[in-house]
Amino acid sequence: MNSWDKKFGELAIIKLIRQKFPKRRKEILKGIGDDAMVFRNGIVVSTDSFFEKIHFDLNYFSMSTLGYHCMAASLSDLAAMGASPLCALVSLHLTKNIDIKKIGELYSGFEKITKKYRMDIAGGDVVTSPSFAMTITVIGHTKNPLMRSGAKPGQALFVTNFLGLAEVGRRVLKMNFPKKEYPEAIHKHLFPEPRIFPVQSIKKFATSCIDTSDGLSTDANHLGEESRVKIVIDAEHIPIHPEVGRFCSIKNIEPLQFILSSGEDFELLFTAYKLPKNKRTKIFRIGRIMKGRGLYISVRGKIRRIKPTGYEHIV
Amino acid sequence: MNSWDKKFGELAIIKLIRQKFPKRRKEILKGIGDDAMVFRNGIVVSTDSFFEKIHFDLNYFSMSTLGYHCMAASLSDLAAMGASPLCALVSLHLTKNIDIKKIGELYSGFEKITKKYRMDIAGGDVVTSPSFAMTITVIGHTKNPLMRSGAKPGQALFVTNFLGLAEVGRRVLKMNFPKKEYPEAIHKHLFPEPRIFPVQSIKKFATSCIDTSDGLSTDANHLGEESRVKIVIDAEHIPIHPEVGRFCSIKNIEPLQFILSSGEDFELLFTAYKLPKNKRTKIFRIGRIMKGRGLYISVRGKIRRIKPTGYEHIV
Repeated sequence: MNSWDKKFGELAIIKLIRQKFPKRRKEILKGIGDDAMVFRNGIVVSTDSFFEKIHFDLNYFSMSTLGYHCMAASLSDLAAMGASPLCALVSLHLTKNIDIKKIGELYSGFEKITKKYRMDIAGGDVVTSPSFAMTITVIGHTKNPLMRSGAKPGQALFVTNFLGLAEVGRRVLKMNFPKKEYPEAIHKHLFPEPRIFPVQSIKKFATSCIDTSDGLSTDANHLGEESRVKIVIDAEHIPIHPEVGRFCSIKNIEPLQFILSSGEDFELLFTAYKLPKNKRTKIFRIGRIMKGRGLYISVRGKIRRIKPTGYEHIV
Repeated sequence: MNSWDKKFGELAIIKLIRQKFPKRRKEILKGIGDDAMVFRNGIVVSTDSFFEKIHFDLNYFSMSTLGYHCMAASLSDLAAMGASPLCALVSLHLTKNIDIKKIGELYSGFEKITKKYRMDIAGGDVVTSPSFAMTITVIGHTKNPLMRSGAKPGQALFVTNFLGLAEVGRRVLKMNFPKKEYPEAIHKHLFPEPRIFPVQSIKKFATSCIDTSDGLSTDANHLGEESRVKIVIDAEHIPIHPEVGRFCSIKNIEPLQFILSSGEDFELLFTAYKLPKNKRTKIFRIGRIMKGRGLYISVRGKIRRIKPTGYEHIV
């Protein structure tokens, strides 16, 4: 973090775009400000960029794993909208040291995950670049998109699965921690699974949704901002995965603080009045929606306002 | 050019993708291998990346001009498909020295061109990067897309406008040539105009189409490959713009060779049986389609095969 990114992060640019670009096309149901854009005909589009050293580290990512990882992260935006994937366009930014064999391996990673979700690779381009990177555009469809803006007072806040695991995995790999004690965390960082299938049942009762890509506080804040509501996270309800607990204990970090600011789990953070009894997915109730604005946390009965401290993509 | 890019350029990667990724989705009419991908519901999508020092030079591009230029280049792929633009998603890769003022200027450039074509900026993302770059995904629509694959023997090859102008403009700016002698070339490099409006009348009689982004020989070769035909370019029919003529004469370059390998004019190269009488756009007939394969050039009555020598995006 430096003064540069504090002055204008992603949010400042979103604001700038909203000011400069009025909505002109009736064909577009939702533009800037959600996980993906949505056409009235049900087509959903999202784009994400991944840079070596910023988003991934080739010291422990094989090219095949990298392909899987980046496509999964991209697809998570479709999951957050309740959309099913159709295809992806991959723009590769290659440095001179990446040969056709490595590119083949990268596409093997794409192949594994696109097969699982029955998608096409339908386009893209290739350019030389001073740094290895890729931009993935994913396209999906849904008749009834799940927006960030549907949360209402009286509803509760839920999350699929544990949070913080991916960041533990990343740090364990980065810092050369004993790997065998963090199998789930490492797997979660390398092979995150977009919640493409679970969201199809979740969207039957969810009223708003976002994926946890930037950390619980940032993501919950986005949800609150777009829905114009106050969100209270109940600290005691946030589940701590044993590997997250172990890591935080060794590193002397408060697990709650760690989870608030750890991204890339690609779980779904959503609101609903209540859960159905026969839900198929692991879901935790971690907060509530109230009238007002801002992000709050309730710890041992005391509610205080918190800043969205999570990882913004500009760091 | 080095051994690296000869071994695998864009074409090698397209081949790799075609082998690895079967077409799975019936919703997709056209995937890899055209200027853009096309859904059966008429949505057309294309993605392009632009890097400082590779695709643009900030020594003579203002941020606003850059915004116009990159969006125009991206939209040219929609024009080549006969599609009308709906919106764009912009993924910005920012270096630390680019402040919010500069970003505002960049978006002013986007604003000018998106207004002209009545488009939205509907999404994107922002990341820090070791090099300034952007990936633009443009989305348009058309009921009847114009493919690269429709050329048939007996048809003729046409191009809208002069070729080579943009490359002259680029070199004049780069080499600090006297600017006042190359006004059209310079304007063409800085502010190329995607043929969004003209294509709507051209598509009534055109059978195949590509935009001239990589140089006449490369682009004509793509058209021939996708249509599985032989293309003969008639050297004497290629129009030489006075500024291209002047530049080539001073630099002692053969104008024909220059035009064959100079890209980024973003004109339309298309095939048709014949032109209608009351056409509105400047169109030159520069070649013919024959049975067979390969790219040929006819010079003073002699026909010889040529290699696609144009600028491939990997250089």
